[in-house]
Formats: sequence, C-alpha cells, structure tokens
Amino acid sequence: MPIKLTAFEHKIAKQLAALKRKSGSHSPSPAMLRDVSGITVKHDFCFLSNPYATDLFLKYWKRDFGNKNTRNLHKLVEQYPSQNRVLAGKLEKIVGVPAQHIFVGNGATEIIQAMLQNFAKRKILVPVPTFSPYLEFAPKGVKTVIHQLRKEAGFKLEAKRFLKDIQREKPDSVVIINPSNPDGGYVSASTLRQLLEKLRHIGIVIIDESFIHFADKNKRTPQDAARLVNTFPNLVVIKSLSKDFGIAGLRLGYGVMSKQRISTLLARGYLWNISGFGEYFLNLLNNRGFMKEYEKARLLAIRERDDFFTQLSTLKGLKVYPSRANMFLIELLGGSRAEDFMVTLLARYGIYVRLCKDKIGLNGEFIRIASCKAKENLKLVRALKNILSE
Amino acid sequence: MPIKLTAFEHKIAKQLAALKRKSGSHSPSPAMLRDVSGITVKHDFCFLSNPYATDLFLKYWKRDFGNKNTRNLHKLVEQYPSQNRVLAGKLEKIVGVPAQHIFVGNGATEIIQAMLQNFAKRKILVPVPTFSPYLEFAPKGVKTVIHQLRKEAGFKLEAKRFLKDIQREKPDSVVIINPSNPDGGYVSASTLRQLLEKLRHIGIVIIDESFIHFADKNKRTPQDAARLVNTFPNLVVIKSLSKDFGIAGLRLGYGVMSKQRISTLLARGYLWNISGFGEYFLNLLNNRGFMKEYEKARLLAIRERDDFFTQLSTLKGLKVYPSRANMFLIELLGGSRAEDFMVTLLARYGIYVRLCKDKIGLNGEFIRIASCKAKENLKLVRALKNILSE
Repeated sequence: MPIKLTAFEHKIAKQLAALKRKSGSHSPSPAMLRDVSGITVKHDFCFLSNPYATDLFLKYWKRDFGNKNTRNLHKLVEQYPSQNRVLAGKLEKIVGVPAQHIFVGNGATEIIQAMLQNFAKRKILVPVPTFSPYLEFAPKGVKTVIHQLRKEAGFKLEAKRFLKDIQREKPDSVVIINPSNPDGGYVSASTLRQLLEKLRHIGIVIIDESFIHFADKNKRTPQDAARLVNTFPNLVVIKSLSKDFGIAGLRLGYGVMSKQRISTLLARGYLWNISGFGEYFLNLLNNRGFMKEYEKARLLAIRERDDFFTQLSTLKGLKVYPSRANMFLIELLGGSRAEDFMVTLLARYGIYVRLCKDKIGLNGEFIRIASCKAKENLKLVRALKNILSE
Repeated sequence: MPIKLTAFEHKIAKQLAALKRKSGSHSPSPAMLRDVSGITVKHDFCFLSNPYATDLFLKYWKRDFGNKNTRNLHKLVEQYPSQNRVLAGKLEKIVGVPAQHIFVGNGATEIIQAMLQNFAKRKILVPVPTFSPYLEFAPKGVKTVIHQLRKEAGFKLEAKRFLKDIQREKPDSVVIINPSNPDGGYVSASTLRQLLEKLRHIGIVIIDESFIHFADKNKRTPQDAARLVNTFPNLVVIKSLSKDFGIAGLRLGYGVMSKQRISTLLARGYLWNISGFGEYFLNLLNNRGFMKEYEKARLLAIRERDDFFTQLSTLKGLKVYPSRANMFLIELLGGSRAEDFMVTLLARYGIYVRLCKDKIGLNGEFIRIASCKAKENLKLVRALKNILSE
C-alpha cells in the first residue's frame, strides 16, 4: 500500500523538495534540513562511514592531544604540514606500493578532479548509477558518456556489455567504481584483471576503491588493484579514506598511478594540500596498535552490515540489493513514492535516508541507506516495519 | 669581515647544501634539518606567521573542544564539512564582499594553482623576486615571464617600469604581491588602483594580499583591493589565512573574483576542499570576541616587527630592507656568503633563517628572516651582533 502523508508531512515534503532543488547532486545536510523544516535528524542513514573507526581515531586523538599535550596541538595548527611526496611515504605500508606511485589528495574528490582535468582527453565513459562527481568534473571539451548498469542484473557491472559499450564509444578514459555506489555492487579481483587486460589501449582506467574495506572480511589489505599499477601503466586507483576510517572531516584520500602522472601533478601544484590533522592521521596508519584495532572496527562494520541485510531482507514491500559496501540500495515495491517514504521516516522517526531521484541511470522508487551501528540499524528496521505494515 | 666556519660547521654546510638541492624552491623543514644534520632548530625564522594569533586560536580551541566537549570534536572528525559556497558566506564579514565573489581555498597555493590553470591563457608576467609557486604553476602551453624588481629601488614595484614591461610582453595574466615576499615591499592603495585602471585590458590581474594584515596598523580590515572586484572584473585577490592568523596547519585561504569565475571553478570541483577544522576557524571569524582579540594580536605583531627593524638597523655589516610584511630581507655587506651566515646561526644558536639563493631575480648575499615574538627577535639580534663583531 502506498504511504499516506499527514498534512504536516505534506508541508515538510514541499520544503524538502525545494531544498533539494538547491542542493544539486548531493543531499542537503542534516543542518540544512533542520534550518528549513525544523526537524532534527536523529539517525543519519545518508552519511556513509564506519562509526567504529571514528571512535577509534578519537581514542588516539585524546591520547596524543589531550589537555596535557598542548604543545603537540600547537605545532599541528601553526606549522606547515609535510609536502605531498613526504606524506605519500606514510601510505606505503597500507597501500603496498612505493611512495612514488602514490598521490595524496584532499579527499577523493580532489583526486577525481585532478585525474579528469589533467588526463582525460576526449571522452570519459562512466557506468551509472554512480557517485556524481565522475559525471560532473570533466573539463571543457571532454565529453562524458554513460554505460547503463541494468536493474535486471542487480546493477552489477556486466563485463561483456561494458566492453561492448567501450568498443562502440571509443573513450580514452574509463571509470569503474568497486564496490559501486549507490548499490554496493562488486567486481571480483579476477574479473577486474581481465577487464584491465582488455582495456590496455585506453588512456586512463580509473578504479575507485573508496568502499573496498567493506568488501571482504578475509582480506585485511583488500586493495589488490593498487598493486597492478606496474602491470597496467594506464591504471589509476582512487581511494577515499573518509568512509572506511570514519574521518570525512579530515579530508583525505589517495591515488595510485604511474610515476609520470604523479610528477605531472606535483609539478603544477598540490604542494601542501593536506592539513596537519590529516598528516597526524597518516602517521596513525603506521602505528601497529592503531591498525590492529582498526581491523577489529572494520570486521565489526562488515558483520553488522551483513546482519542488517538479513533483517532488511525479511521486510515485505522492499527489495534490498546485495552490497559489498557499507550501504544498501532499496527499491520500494508497494507503489509508494520514495519521497513520501523519506519524509515519513524523517517526520515520524527522525531518520534521514538518501533519496536517489537525482541519480542518473536510476529510474524508479529507490532510497539508499548506510549501515550504521547495529543499534541504529535496528531502529531503521523497526521504523520500516511499522511504515510498511500500515 | 667574512665569517670563518669551524670544521664542524663546514660539515653541516655540506649536508645542508645537499638537502637543499633535494628540496626544490622551498626551504627544508626543521624536521628534515634535524634528521640530516642532527641540529635541532630552537628558533625558526624561516617560518612566516603571527605566533600571537596561533595562541589566540588555541585558546578558543580549548574552550570549544576541551575534554568536556568530545561531541563537538567527534562531529568535526566524522562529518563532511560544508561545501564551498556555504563556507564563502562565513568570510563575507571580514572580506566585505558578498559570498558569490568568494572562493574558499585549501591554502592560498590551491587558489594560485586554480587561477593559473583555469584562467591564464598565453603568458603570465610575474615581478621577481617572489613567492615561487607563481613561477611554477603555469599549465602546459602558458609561458611565464618575469618583471625584474630593482635592488636599487629596494625591490619596490615601480609602476612605470612595470607597465612598460607589460606593454612589451603583452601578457594576458599579471601578478602583484602586496606586500611582497621576500622583502615586504608595499604598493599603496592609490597606486594599486591606478595600476588596475591601466590594466583593464589584461585578462586576469592577480593581487596577492597574503601579508596585508601586517601592512597598516591603522586599518583593521586592510583588504581594500577585494572591494574593487566589481569595478575591475579582471581582478582576482588571493589571500592566505596562514600567516596573519597563524594557522598554516589548517590550510585555508580565499580568493575574491567575479561570480563567473567562481561558477566556473565550482562546476569542475572543489566540492569539499576545506576540513572540519578549517570550517571551525571560519566560524571563529564571525565571533566578535575572537576578532576583537585578534586585532590586538595583529597590532602586537606589527609593533614588534617595527621594533625589530629598529634593532636590526643598528647592526653594521647588514642592510635591512624596510618591510610592511612580517619578514625582512637582509643583505650581507661584509663579504660573507649567505650560506655561511645561515650555517653559523644554526650551528651556534639553533637559529634557522631562510637562504635566498633559490629566489629567481635575487642575486647577491641575502637572507630572509621572519619577525617572531619580541623575545625571540632579540635573540636573533644578539646572535647577529656577535657574529658580525667577530
């Protein structure tokens, strides 16, 4: 049965629609929502992160910058952080490739921007639905074309169809997001390698592994793709550190690519693009204790994501797509509009979910939800159950 | 009399020369110095900042994120900061122009990079000596030419000669740094306006005001140039917030320019280029108490800079160039090599000064020193006196 909105919820729906029109291809922030509708978001399922990793970071932060260590904090605020090549050295260990192949970015978006604007020449092919900056950051004169992932295939990348589109479109730049966003679809390491073999003639193949830490509980360092950078000189692996490590506020990501590309980038800028706080985090990645605890936080997030899927799958009136990231794409089956669903969750439960109407290549009634801590996930499951049983 | 180095100092000199060759156009950091030579920098006169402003920032930081406010810190680390246009609104008050003219940058270097790479078309003219990124960040196909500031004129920008060079070179992009780096030379507001009138035909005129807060003790908001952005659509004002506010570790700067240029930039990226810590600082700029205390820190830095000049001017064997920034360019007159001077200060007093041999357009024996807190400035004056009287 379609949801019936109350008069109040109708008003909120109108306000949110107006707000969304102003927000472009990203969701309005909880603070903007509150300013416009007066509703406080209690549980933010829009935001993709690992909350256990944030807790861990703050534990180390307090140890290192607690009230007793004013001097450390003073230095972090006052001094210039290290330059890009020095910071790259601090990522060697977790990435598993030499620093000369690593470019440190002010968030993954800076790296996406740098790649498209410096290395895309004529045409970029991007599978959709996807993370929107890949569709937006192409420089003037470079065309962006889409490869439609099929709903019938669960939005999974179908290698044959993908290669056929590439053959037809003849792009010089190709993007693969793995696991994908908004659905968490996954391409196996072996398929990826086969694809790379067949894409050797393409100028630049970007594999975005921003959600790879959630993909496989058996692999502590799941970024196999990064190690292929010597075998495939056209490969660029992009990785946000926001999601898996729960530190979006620090702005950190990295790109793995050929030495030449890194030299090109650093010759034109990116001198001091990481803050002192970002550098502090990079130091933690070389702290054995931190990384041991991080592995626990990673496994916990995966376990709870899997439990969440099991719970969501029992609900009638929804289709939940299997995911290897920390999010789920949910299709509403009962004739409800996604907007009404979203507003109802917000007005009745303070739960904020991601509408997907702005996602190019995704038609129908979809919402995207993050996997949060188990306790919060349960609240969403209960709220959904209530709404669906009305 | 030229300085005589001890055997130990000779060894240090050799190590530093090798290190400098690896550091490009920026000084090796104190940490790199220590790693290579074993010498700890006690007083860093390379680094340009306002130490009183750093103290002030930390005072507010402790209030807002002290041990009791873990929740605030948690949010800052975990959440995405606001996007560029929202952050620009937080600068309106101190810049005095509407947000739609303000681009917030991850340090001034990001803005320099963005300007040269997006808006310079054929040829950039840069007065030298100067801050090196202006000579380095031009994109492929864009030529960089220099306008030599004359030593006989105290490296002051001479408007007539400058305009003549522009007429001859026909650049589409022109840079003016005011006050200048490394010498602190100053162009008055009226001269600047006259120059802008005569440069209306130039595609983009960049005025870098990163040191303007140190220029005039009588003007609380000295950025007059920013307000000219409506009168001169080709004007771009770039401002680092690192130096005057003592927060280089946060990475913050801004550019004031036409609405069109800002739209062009934001259409291609710069979505979340400022960290949560940077956003916290931008909030402080709208805190009346903070700004009142900042004004005191600004005036104190200017007063001590002026005292420092008076003290330095009494020393024989040096020529100190007058400066409106928080630094002094010093010429060694007694036949000493700048390298020997620098090594002696480091080895005997733990004082680190900036060598200027890498500065294009600056030939001779020069060092650059920052104005630090009065107590530290006095230590440098005494050390110089000792060395010069040997």
